[in-house]
Amino acid sequence: MKALLLKGPKSLSIVDRPLPVPGEGDVLVRVRAAALCRTDAKMWHSGHRDLALPRVLGHEVSGSIDETPGKIYALWPGKACGSCSACRKGRQNLCPDMQITGFHRDGGFAEFLTAPRSSLLEVPDGVGPVNATLAEPLACAVHGVRQVGVRPQEKVLIYGAGTLGLLIALVCRNRGASVVIADPDSLKLSKSKALRNRLGISADTGGIGEGGCVDVVFNATSAYETLEAGVCRLSAGGRFCLFSGIGKDATIPSGLFDELHYRELEVVGSYGCTFDDMGEAIRLLSCYTEGLQFLIERRIRLDEVPSVMDAVHVGKGFKYVIC
Amino acid sequence: MKALLLKGPKSLSIVDRPLPVPGEGDVLVRVRAAALCRTDAKMWHSGHRDLALPRVLGHEVSGSIDETPGKIYALWPGKACGSCSACRKGRQNLCPDMQITGFHRDGGFAEFLTAPRSSLLEVPDGVGPVNATLAEPLACAVHGVRQVGVRPQEKVLIYGAGTLGLLIALVCRNRGASVVIADPDSLKLSKSKALRNRLGISADTGGIGEGGCVDVVFNATSAYETLEAGVCRLSAGGRFCLFSGIGKDATIPSGLFDELHYRELEVVGSYGCTFDDMGEAIRLLSCYTEGLQFLIERRIRLDEVPSVMDAVHVGKGFKYVIC
Repeated sequence: MKALLLKGPKSLSIVDRPLPVPGEGDVLVRVRAAALCRTDAKMWHSGHRDLALPRVLGHEVSGSIDETPGKIYALWPGKACGSCSACRKGRQNLCPDMQITGFHRDGGFAEFLTAPRSSLLEVPDGVGPVNATLAEPLACAVHGVRQVGVRPQEKVLIYGAGTLGLLIALVCRNRGASVVIADPDSLKLSKSKALRNRLGISADTGGIGEGGCVDVVFNATSAYETLEAGVCRLSAGGRFCLFSGIGKDATIPSGLFDELHYRELEVVGSYGCTFDDMGEAIRLLSCYTEGLQFLIERRIRLDEVPSVMDAVHVGKGFKYVIC
Repeated sequence: MKALLLKGPKSLSIVDRPLPVPGEGDVLVRVRAAALCRTDAKMWHSGHRDLALPRVLGHEVSGSIDETPGKIYALWPGKACGSCSACRKGRQNLCPDMQITGFHRDGGFAEFLTAPRSSLLEVPDGVGPVNATLAEPLACAVHGVRQVGVRPQEKVLIYGAGTLGLLIALVCRNRGASVVIADPDSLKLSKSKALRNRLGISADTGGIGEGGCVDVVFNATSAYETLEAGVCRLSAGGRFCLFSGIGKDATIPSGLFDELHYRELEVVGSYGCTFDDMGEAIRLLSCYTEGLQFLIERRIRLDEVPSVMDAVHVGKGFKYVIC
């Protein structure tokens, strides 16, 4: 089969490989579509904490299996031990033995991959294999919203109007919160206008700018400035969902922590998603498939991936999907 | 009446004043005992966000009122509006109109003060007016433990073996958590040995040192090093209660926030206490009065306060109580 192998920084090329052999509990999955995530581009650019090389990337994957022809599955890109303290609490994404597809084990930038049978989720008719690749990022959005427990009527501010920022906005609106999404890139914001209008999501083209108090902030961007700006925007008792890391190059004044202390703010990390989050994401996806179409920026072939990595890395456009 | 008035940095002196006149809903309280808090010393040294000068300090107060002779009351040092969004959620300590006794309004370093009648809590017989001054710091400990939701069997690490660190430890043990308290000051730790042995609280004289993973960390010290050290000690999904501010002079590497993101840690601020926390604190105080006796370091007269402020400011010893 054809696969796209990452061997080191920016070393990404098509290779011919034998079909992977499913291990115990695994199944061979024919890839129907695989989307590029900005994390893929970061791994291609400079590696990642959870990446072991060489690796076939791709963790936003839909596929089919021989035994149920015609059915499309989304893949929860994880394999957790199921018995550790984190797994028992329903937090498989924190399992110390977690094997993330496309990070620790080969992913979907290939014709086939193997996946735990228990990680497959059937996608309803009408969603289709390309849109089904949105299930994983949508599940990450669901996870973040669950982590900070967004409630009806709450005011939510989201930094970053990329795919994840918009999906977080969708999940928050679905919970009855009011949402403002802030991004200095007015082009990006304009692309989502139809969805935002339909869902009643406000936009702030002033970027991190000024504004009234909110109950919850998400950073769907690694711009570290949003951390301080977001903390300032929180009302007392508010929560900041650290949905993205902010890199290691900035230093944060410790006065920020006095804000957290005196105003009883919470900073809550969110990383990845659980199998349950995927289930919720697929339910949402089947409701909003049409409105989310614009997130599929471009359909590409496997051999075109290296040529778009730079664009994905700088966050240009929404989703590039291999299909 | 005699009162101790703070007019500016380190300007603290006895003055003669007329008896304060209770406003609507207030009552005149004869001060029976008032403890010095390190925050009082910080205000004396360099002011405080919530302090308006000139001010009679003192927010850890017990007293009596004419209409119920013989009864001792602890004071919840707050007056909240009762109708704002924070108050309606039971978070009066975050009320934007909060008037903190000893901060925004005159406190207990005097013969009398006025307090909202609704802020008085009767203290059971046997506790006594001096020990009753522990109700407020104990309520702050209760508040912090509630903020991070410490659960039975969880492992808790507390930085700082001063009064607050020990009271947090007591509340956590009372909830069935296992507790380690860390402080580089072995003398301070040795003074609490009897209580720690009785409650089964471990001590780590290595200060912020090394050790296994814990579920919850509290900083009952403003040493900023405990922030990074504590985050390292947290297991995935763990919570850091920012019980103390860490000052504005340090800078925190942004890599800390990546730890929060990837390992889904939470940082939760805690500041002050609510009326309900005071109620819980008084219940605990009546159970543990005898074991907490050692926290009363020294009984002093009102005119001795200026001479002990330096010792309180550097955290030398436990509680100095005016009585």
